[in-house]
Amino acid sequence: MRWSSFFRTASRAFHENPSLSKCLVVCTMIPFNYCSGGGLLAYADAAAEKNMEDKCRKKKVVVLGTGWAGTTFLRNLKSTSFDVEVVSPRNYFAFTPLLPSVTIGTVEARSVVEPIRSITRKKNMDIQFTEAECYRIDPKNNKVYCRSSQDRNLGGKQEFSVDYDYLIIAIGARSNTFNTPGVEEYTHFLKEVEDAQRIRRKVLDLFERASLPCVSEEEKKKLLNFVVVGGGPTGVEFAAELHDFVHDDLSKLYPSIRKYVNITLLEAGDHILNMFDKRITEFAERKFSREGIDVRLGSMVVKVTDKEICTKERGSGNAVSLPYGMVVWSTGIGPRPELLQFMKDVGQGSRRAISTDEWLRVEGFHNIYALGDCATINQRKVMEDIAVIFSKADKNGDGKLDAEEFHEVVDDIIERYPQVDLYLKKKQMNNIMALMRKSEDVSGIVDIETFKAGLSEVDSQMKNLPATAQVAAQQGVYLANCFNRMEQCERYPEGPLKFRGTGRHRFRAFRYKHLGQFAPLGGEQTAAQLPGDWVSIGHSSQWLWYSVYASKQVSWRTRYLVVSDWGRRFIFGRDSSRI
Amino acid sequence: MRWSSFFRTASRAFHENPSLSKCLVVCTMIPFNYCSGGGLLAYADAAAEKNMEDKCRKKKVVVLGTGWAGTTFLRNLKSTSFDVEVVSPRNYFAFTPLLPSVTIGTVEARSVVEPIRSITRKKNMDIQFTEAECYRIDPKNNKVYCRSSQDRNLGGKQEFSVDYDYLIIAIGARSNTFNTPGVEEYTHFLKEVEDAQRIRRKVLDLFERASLPCVSEEEKKKLLNFVVVGGGPTGVEFAAELHDFVHDDLSKLYPSIRKYVNITLLEAGDHILNMFDKRITEFAERKFSREGIDVRLGSMVVKVTDKEICTKERGSGNAVSLPYGMVVWSTGIGPRPELLQFMKDVGQGSRRAISTDEWLRVEGFHNIYALGDCATINQRKVMEDIAVIFSKADKNGDGKLDAEEFHEVVDDIIERYPQVDLYLKKKQMNNIMALMRKSEDVSGIVDIETFKAGLSEVDSQMKNLPATAQVAAQQGVYLANCFNRMEQCERYPEGPLKFRGTGRHRFRAFRYKHLGQFAPLGGEQTAAQLPGDWVSIGHSSQWLWYSVYASKQVSWRTRYLVVSDWGRRFIFGRDSSRI
Repeated sequence: MRWSSFFRTASRAFHENPSLSKCLVVCTMIPFNYCSGGGLLAYADAAAEKNMEDKCRKKKVVVLGTGWAGTTFLRNLKSTSFDVEVVSPRNYFAFTPLLPSVTIGTVEARSVVEPIRSITRKKNMDIQFTEAECYRIDPKNNKVYCRSSQDRNLGGKQEFSVDYDYLIIAIGARSNTFNTPGVEEYTHFLKEVEDAQRIRRKVLDLFERASLPCVSEEEKKKLLNFVVVGGGPTGVEFAAELHDFVHDDLSKLYPSIRKYVNITLLEAGDHILNMFDKRITEFAERKFSREGIDVRLGSMVVKVTDKEICTKERGSGNAVSLPYGMVVWSTGIGPRPELLQFMKDVGQGSRRAISTDEWLRVEGFHNIYALGDCATINQRKVMEDIAVIFSKADKNGDGKLDAEEFHEVVDDIIERYPQVDLYLKKKQMNNIMALMRKSEDVSGIVDIETFKAGLSEVDSQMKNLPATAQVAAQQGVYLANCFNRMEQCERYPEGPLKFRGTGRHRFRAFRYKHLGQFAPLGGEQTAAQLPGDWVSIGHSSQWLWYSVYASKQVSWRTRYLVVSDWGRRFIFGRDSSRI
Repeated sequence: MRWSSFFRTASRAFHENPSLSKCLVVCTMIPFNYCSGGGLLAYADAAAEKNMEDKCRKKKVVVLGTGWAGTTFLRNLKSTSFDVEVVSPRNYFAFTPLLPSVTIGTVEARSVVEPIRSITRKKNMDIQFTEAECYRIDPKNNKVYCRSSQDRNLGGKQEFSVDYDYLIIAIGARSNTFNTPGVEEYTHFLKEVEDAQRIRRKVLDLFERASLPCVSEEEKKKLLNFVVVGGGPTGVEFAAELHDFVHDDLSKLYPSIRKYVNITLLEAGDHILNMFDKRITEFAERKFSREGIDVRLGSMVVKVTDKEICTKERGSGNAVSLPYGMVVWSTGIGPRPELLQFMKDVGQGSRRAISTDEWLRVEGFHNIYALGDCATINQRKVMEDIAVIFSKADKNGDGKLDAEEFHEVVDDIIERYPQVDLYLKKKQMNNIMALMRKSEDVSGIVDIETFKAGLSEVDSQMKNLPATAQVAAQQGVYLANCFNRMEQCERYPEGPLKFRGTGRHRFRAFRYKHLGQFAPLGGEQTAAQLPGDWVSIGHSSQWLWYSVYASKQVSWRTRYLVVSDWGRRFIFGRDSSRI
């Protein structure tokens, strides 16, 4: 490495990271001492120099995405020993759970977004943001290739690459069309803020179009048939919000066409909100049917054309065609196209999300993390490791675990394989010994067969985490904590025993803690399912919903805006200007 | 007229206008009485029937446009004897004086708009709104042809025609490019809410693009050169707001590229804000130069390309090319394309706005009104009418006006020709007799020559009204008052003598009352020029500006939103999310 390039690097680092200054002063002073020593420069050991520079150079963390996972990571990162660069096509964080409210103006789009630069600026850390999308990841050379996401002809070079030491992939997912023909072209998704804004405009367009004097009655009915595909929380909330908008606001402004409005909710499964408690599902279905929202269960969409949406009814097998004014598609998620090549490269081409280990590391890489909707944790099965667990636990190698040996390893097993804990809870057992005892005598000595038999069913408790903001946010917090304590944990690992290797894992594995879930049903009523199967439906849950969503805002600005939007809506109703 | 069509009309009217029900009951009862009389039906006098129907049928007023003029008309219309239909491509009224604030997020777009249906709904009158644009006016058949302004393929018939008894053209104007090549393609106008939203997005796009690591220094300078063409109040306010945005908000979020930002204001004339008092102009120019806004006076734009804006400097005659990131074009207004054909049809093809008489009627039509930016009042010259004025005043026909004759006609002259009043005020004279006395003896007898000489210079006081919201709003109020008192004034005309006809004009002529004008200059400073040449510049005027603009809002909703936006900006700054 030449001196000129060293000084260039140093100068850049100094300009970009004032906090580096002290460190740089030290670095640059040492060579000058050499110089004043006279003639010593030639002997300066190249290796020592590199070592020094490496010590000064912070590790570069590149974060892709500014959604829940990426932003929560950034907000919780406290360690100043990293140089962080964020690359995302959106220069803001969006509070996505409020998107259905944005579609009809209960809350304004701008109230649910916060510039990522504002979020990171307050941290007084080396966080750079670049508005671009990453189109290629090169894990061999620790490099990502990016390009500006603005398609407008602003001029200037638009592509660049960024080197990383750690890469955090948190780019989220896209709506899954299940390759249904016409979905991409004719339906609206509800993933981004822009989607919500487009839906809002379209709803008003349709009301205005249906009000024209030249439009026939049949045409009015078609224009005002709003079809929602997917009975998950998003689809249900959108249908409910749309019903409120029509009922509370538009019916006063467009009284002559109110009677033509129809909202249809298509769900391929047996029930809407099927991830919720039965009581909630039933309540929602009854409420919708009372309000005239046409819920069609077991209805598979097979095709969407510019005029009609075609379904196949599972019960009767009939094909049904529905003329529509607008279709909102909210059936689930799939991988973003930018990620497909990387997934192929790492041998995960056929998966629907990047597979990671329990420490959120992409399988096969120690420095690439993936979290949020774009990733799924591939929990290790106990039964795959059962032999190595046993041999590791059997310290004296007598082929049996005595009480002491068992006691020593049990915490590590539960830590490393969280499904064990879930299984114990499900069976209402106190500890893992109970599993063994059940199938053996009470001596406390366990052989490999007993061990296997005892744990044989625990893997049935493994399930993928839902693709929710809650999971992504918890992963972001978890990963930030890992980075915050990286140095400390390198020295004093706090994770469980490595059953297949030596030593311990640096960190405890990620553990999701479900805090409950809401399903707003319109008319100031919300269904809430809280931990411990506690279910609450009605106006009180709506107030709980208001408080939780207000408290979860990322800034006081958005908190103020969201609350004032709710107030504004109570007093003045929703705005129907078509802008 | 056949019965079937009578019933159809009646039924439609009944459905659309519940308040017509009583009238319709009477109308329909009478024929049934005829029927029950047996055989009398055949004798029903067609003329009487038509008479009856006419009596029941309200006169149809069609209003084109929902800007200042149209909306103020609707808000002030109180008479229920009209059937009003509003046709406009925008289903909302926009408080346009706040558009420069919207471009950079001091105020949100949605805070300055109010749905026209909300405005009219509260009036409990027969006001229908149709979101469409009028593309042809057929004054011979009293018909306007409209089509839906949504270009999306929503289906259904999109064209229709509307009959009118009175037509009110208030469609505003478009930005005038003076046929400068490239302006349409490459610059941003600032006329509509959408324009302001586009500008906001573009500003943030440019900041993000300039932040990319692959963009050269030269390119950064180009991207962050913001050019404003036109030193009128809009251009100046936009430049000031943009400066504030960069200085207050963006410089904190984009510290590394702040030094590349440049704002250039091009003005073809000698000074910016040239319609204001000199003190204001000078203050603004000094303030801008202190803040680093590059004001170039005498700079004519001759061409805009995708990369550069080319000007010719009036002083030196030099051609200058400026690379730019964004150009905002705000140089004046021209007629909307939709109106050009109508203007040709009525022989006004070469004009820049529709010419109306002092009662806002399009010249040559008794039932077509034009107001706001699309119209200009063609004030009648005194000297054109001098002979008929004299002969009308000379009641005894002796070729001379004695004091009594003069006294009788003087109010009508001043009412009919407002320039007389302006001239008297300018000369600080009390009454019109002083004009005559100056050139004649004190006998009080005036002959035609003295009369001519006395009034020979008054026409010099005529000038076109500025194209401002204030003028449009006053015209809207004026016209609504005319319509409110239409029946009363038909019977008891209150206008001045018709010098070229018999009797009196129904209404007093429209008279503009200038209430002052603001020019916000950024940094919480505003210049205010109030009537009586009262000039105020600084923070106090900014507070006056806040109060006036808050009080002038069309609804409590927008008032609340605008004030809360200002508050939000004070506390949290402006949002820089690119949505």
